[in-house]
Amino acid sequence: MSQSTLLPDPCDPGGIAGFAERLRAGTTTAEAATGVYLQRINTLEPRLGAFECVIADQALDTARALDDLLAAGTDLGPLMGVPVAVKDLFAIDGTPTTAGSNLDLDDIIGGEGTFIKSLRRAGCIILGKTKTPEFAMGSVGGRGGVSHLRGTPWNPWDAEIQRVPGVSSSGSAVAVAAGMCAFAIGTDTGGSVRGPAALCGIFGLKTTPGLWPADGMFPQAPELDTIGPMTATAADAALVFAALQGTPLPRAHPLRGLRLAKPVNHFYEELDSPVETCVAAALEALASAGASIVPIEVPEIAEPKRDFGAYVPANLLAVLGRERFLAERHRMDPLIVPRIADGLEVKADQYIRLMWRRHELVRLIEDRMGGFDGWILPTAGMVAPPMAETEGRDAEDLRSEMGKRKTHRRMAANFFGLSATSTPIQTFGSDLPVGLQIMCPANCEDRALSIALTLEDLFGAPQRPDLGGFL
Amino acid sequence: MSQSTLLPDPCDPGGIAGFAERLRAGTTTAEAATGVYLQRINTLEPRLGAFECVIADQALDTARALDDLLAAGTDLGPLMGVPVAVKDLFAIDGTPTTAGSNLDLDDIIGGEGTFIKSLRRAGCIILGKTKTPEFAMGSVGGRGGVSHLRGTPWNPWDAEIQRVPGVSSSGSAVAVAAGMCAFAIGTDTGGSVRGPAALCGIFGLKTTPGLWPADGMFPQAPELDTIGPMTATAADAALVFAALQGTPLPRAHPLRGLRLAKPVNHFYEELDSPVETCVAAALEALASAGASIVPIEVPEIAEPKRDFGAYVPANLLAVLGRERFLAERHRMDPLIVPRIADGLEVKADQYIRLMWRRHELVRLIEDRMGGFDGWILPTAGMVAPPMAETEGRDAEDLRSEMGKRKTHRRMAANFFGLSATSTPIQTFGSDLPVGLQIMCPANCEDRALSIALTLEDLFGAPQRPDLGGFL
Repeated sequence: MSQSTLLPDPCDPGGIAGFAERLRAGTTTAEAATGVYLQRINTLEPRLGAFECVIADQALDTARALDDLLAAGTDLGPLMGVPVAVKDLFAIDGTPTTAGSNLDLDDIIGGEGTFIKSLRRAGCIILGKTKTPEFAMGSVGGRGGVSHLRGTPWNPWDAEIQRVPGVSSSGSAVAVAAGMCAFAIGTDTGGSVRGPAALCGIFGLKTTPGLWPADGMFPQAPELDTIGPMTATAADAALVFAALQGTPLPRAHPLRGLRLAKPVNHFYEELDSPVETCVAAALEALASAGASIVPIEVPEIAEPKRDFGAYVPANLLAVLGRERFLAERHRMDPLIVPRIADGLEVKADQYIRLMWRRHELVRLIEDRMGGFDGWILPTAGMVAPPMAETEGRDAEDLRSEMGKRKTHRRMAANFFGLSATSTPIQTFGSDLPVGLQIMCPANCEDRALSIALTLEDLFGAPQRPDLGGFL
Repeated sequence: MSQSTLLPDPCDPGGIAGFAERLRAGTTTAEAATGVYLQRINTLEPRLGAFECVIADQALDTARALDDLLAAGTDLGPLMGVPVAVKDLFAIDGTPTTAGSNLDLDDIIGGEGTFIKSLRRAGCIILGKTKTPEFAMGSVGGRGGVSHLRGTPWNPWDAEIQRVPGVSSSGSAVAVAAGMCAFAIGTDTGGSVRGPAALCGIFGLKTTPGLWPADGMFPQAPELDTIGPMTATAADAALVFAALQGTPLPRAHPLRGLRLAKPVNHFYEELDSPVETCVAAALEALASAGASIVPIEVPEIAEPKRDFGAYVPANLLAVLGRERFLAERHRMDPLIVPRIADGLEVKADQYIRLMWRRHELVRLIEDRMGGFDGWILPTAGMVAPPMAETEGRDAEDLRSEMGKRKTHRRMAANFFGLSATSTPIQTFGSDLPVGLQIMCPANCEDRALSIALTLEDLFGAPQRPDLGGFL
C-alpha cells in the first residue's frame, strides 16, 4: 500500500452507525475496515506519533473471525467489527502497558480488566494502544500532552507548526481526529478525555466514577478515575455508550424546554479570543433556537483546582508507593516528577479534610444543578498552543505559568463527581478546535449525551482536519 | 430521699420488657421509674462518678408528659417511658457537650442529631450524660477509661479498690452496671462499647458504621464511628435494637446448627487467667449444648491494631483541625495528647494505602466469615485492673506497656466493618467481669443479637454487682 495517500475513513459517511449498516449490508467487512485503519495509521503515524504500539496481526485475525461470526448469523451488536484504539493505561493481552513510563508497573496494573473484556464482547477490534504522558499526568502550564519520555503526539490541526494535543488522553484524541480508528478509549481523572477532545476537535464523554470498573487499568486517583469514549461525533459517542451499557440509544433533547445554566464565575473567565467568540456564538445559536440559558454563580467552583494539587499527587504516590517513587524518580519524566513530589508532604489530616469537603461538595453541587438540564461552559480557555512554547522550559517555569491561570474548566466535573461531554464548536469562527462542555449530575451520561446530540443537530457535524499536509 | 439506701431498679425483674409491662399494667409510671433512677444516681454518683451532668427536671417533666400521653391512649412502643443515659459525645438540647474535653467543640458537634431525636421519638427519657475520656480516646496501656480532665468513673465491681471501667464509653457502662438507668448509649470506634461492657459486666452491641446517623455527635473517625446500646442483658439490647429499627424482636438462634468460628491466632493469645478460664468454660458449655465451634486462622487479624495507630489519630486531627490541636494541646489531657500527636506525621499516601487496604480487608473478612454464623472470642484479655496501676505514670510509660501487649480483641470488628456483641460470662469462674464477643458480618446486628440471646439462655442471666460497699 502506498504510504502517501490515505484510504477513506471506513466510518465516512454516517459515522459508526454508517459503517455498521454497510457491514451488515455486505458492502464492507470488518477485515477491510481494519485494513484501512491500519493503512491510515501506517501513513500518518510517522508524523503524528499517536500510538505506543499497533497490534496489526491480532486486529486482522479478530476482524476475520468477527466477519465469519456475523456471516454465520451471530450479531454482537452495533460495535461488532468496529476498530478502536485504547489509551496505554489499560492492560491488553499480548501488549506491554507502559502508562507512559519506563518503569515496570505490571504489579499495579494487573491483567486485562473488565472494561477491555466488555469492548471485546461487544465485538470491537483493538488496533493498538495510544500515547499518554507518564502516569497520565500531563498538564503542565496548560501545555497538555507533552511527554519527555515517549514523545508527544502531533495535533493534526496544524501540519506546519507542531501543536500540543491536550492532556492526557492525547494519543487517543489524535487517533480519532486523524481517522486512525473508529473511536478511542481515554480516561478522565482531571479532564483528560475532554481536554484533548477540545484541542483536537473531537467529541469526548466523561463518565461517572464507578460506572465502568477500572480493574486492569493504571489508576491515578481511584475515587476520581473514569473511562470515557472519544469519538468523531456525539452520535458516535451515544452509540458506543448505549452499546456498552445495553441501554436504548440516547435521542436529542428537545430544544424547547432545554434549560441550561451558564456558571459565569471562574468558567467564563480568562478565555482566549477564538474560544470566547465560538462559545458566545454557540450559546447565541442555542438561545435563538429556543433553549433557555440562565447565568448562575457557583461560589465553590474554584476549589477543585486548588485542591487537586494535593489530592491527585497523594493518590498517585499511594498507587506507586512512596519507596518506588523515591527510588525511581530519576527514571521518570522530569516534567512529571515535581508534580508527584507535591504529594510527599501532604499530611493525612489535610487529605481527610479534603475528602470530606469533596463529599460535601458532591451533594452541594447536585443541589445547585437542580432545576437545570445541565451546565454549559467552555471545555478549555485556549486553542492548542505550539509545542515550541514548552520546549527548553523546565518544570518549575511551566508550573509557574500554570499558576498564573486561575481557572481550570474540567476538574470541577471530576471533583464534583459529574458526567460531562465536550463538543467541537470551531465552526463558529476559529481555525483551531474549540470545545463546549455540558456537565450533568452523576450517572446522567444519557442526559449529557442527549443534550450533546441536540447541539450537534443544531450546529452541524464537526469539521475534520485536512490531513494533506501530513502526507 | 435517703442517700444511704438504694431503691430497687425499676427494670427488676424482667429487664426493660418487665418494666414496659408494669408501666402498661398501671403498676408503675415513667415518673416513678425516673424518680428511682435519679435517687440511685444521687446515692451512687459521689463514689462512682459516672455522669458528666444529670438533667433531673427535664427528665421528670418528660416522664410526666409521657405518662399522660400513654394514659390518653398513645403508646410510643417498647421504649416509652424508659430512662436512658447518653455518652457525653452527643448534643442534647439544654446540656453542654464536652466530649470529655475542656475545649469548646460546638462547631464540630452541632445541634441535637438524628439518633438522639429517634430516642426521644421512641419515648425514652434522657437522665443525663455519662463521662468519656477526652475525645473518646481512652485506651492507654490497657487502662481504659482513665481521664485526667474530668475524672474516671469507678468500676462498680469493687468498692474497696478503684478499678478502671474500660474505654471509652466508661460512664455509660458504669451507669448500666450500677442500675443508674434502664440502658445507656455508647459509641464504638475501636472497641469503646464492648471494652467497658466487658470490664463492667454488662452487655454491649457494636453496630455497623452508617446504621445509625452520627450527626450531632463528636466524631472520632467518621468511617468507623458507630453508636451502640449498652444494656444489662442481651434481651434488653434486642428490645432496644428492634424498637429503634422498627424491626421484629430478634429471637434466640437454635443451638443445633449454630456454627461459630473460633479465630485462635491473636484473639486467643495473652489471656489473663480468669478470662482464659471463663471463655474456655463458656465454649465448652456451648459445644456440649450442640453448637459447633470450629477453630480457624485469620492471617490478617493483627493488621487493625498496627494500623489504628495511624488511622484514628489522623482522623481525629482532621476533626479537630491541626491548628486547633497545636494551639490547644496544653489544655488537653496529657494522656491523650501524645496519641493524637501520632497523627501529625502521618502522610496522605500512607493514609490512602491504609484506607485501600481496609476496604480490601472488609471484603476479604466477609469471605472468611462465610459458612459460619459468627466468630466467638474474648472481648478483653484482662479483667478490670486497679486504677492505682495507672496513677503517677505518664503517657509514654503507659504507651510502652500497651506496646508490649500485641493483641487487641475489639478493633478488628471496627476495622473490618463488622457488627459485634459482648456478653458477660464471669459466672464461669471469675470475681470480676469477663466478656465474650460474637462478631458477625456488617449489617447483621440481628444475627449477632440472636446468637447473644442463645448464650444468655444457656448461661443464665448475668450477675449484677453488689453495691452495698458504695452506700
